[in-house]
Amino acid sequence: MFRHVVLFTWTEEATEEQRARVATELGRLPEAITEIRSYTVGPDAGVSPGNHQFAVVADFDSADDFLVYRDHPLHQAVIAEHIKPIVASRAAVQFEV
Amino acid sequence: MFRHVVLFTWTEEATEEQRARVATELGRLPEAITEIRSYTVGPDAGVSPGNHQFAVVADFDSADDFLVYRDHPLHQAVIAEHIKPIVASRAAVQFEV
Repeated sequence: MFRHVVLFTWTEEATEEQRARVATELGRLPEAITEIRSYTVGPDAGVSPGNHQFAVVADFDSADDFLVYRDHPLHQAVIAEHIKPIVASRAAVQFEV
Repeated sequence: MFRHVVLFTWTEEATEEQRARVATELGRLPEAITEIRSYTVGPDAGVSPGNHQFAVVADFDSADDFLVYRDHPLHQAVIAEHIKPIVASRAAVQFEV
């Protein structure tokens, strides 16, 4: 399995509606991008200090399938329209599991 | 399910042996900490630029079980002996899935 992880912090100006919209829009991608095997997203639970604010963990059969997702027009549209306007920082790793 | 994600970058001085040792030592924790439901670790695959260098994704039944793991002496020993000496930056999120 090939696992993709990305963590975000949001700008101070990001509204609660904008933050929630990211989860909603990303959550639609598994219906459209058949290479996705598992897709989990959510805001930080607030149990540990100093955390980032939002996580995506997505599983694929292979690195090639991850690249289909990464570069998919629907994914890129969510990034451009809903993530980039409110992102402050981003950390990502892809790894074989 | 309660999912814990942490991403690291390492210092430039970190040796390949030290980086590999982190994976080895963390990989022993699921045998010792029974609250862990799923545990995946690994170095970044190198398919996307600008990534962090190492990921941990761990699943638990609850936030309370995550806290048992987070504060467990064996986990804290791995952090103190193998992670802290080579960590440059850390990003983490815990979220309900």
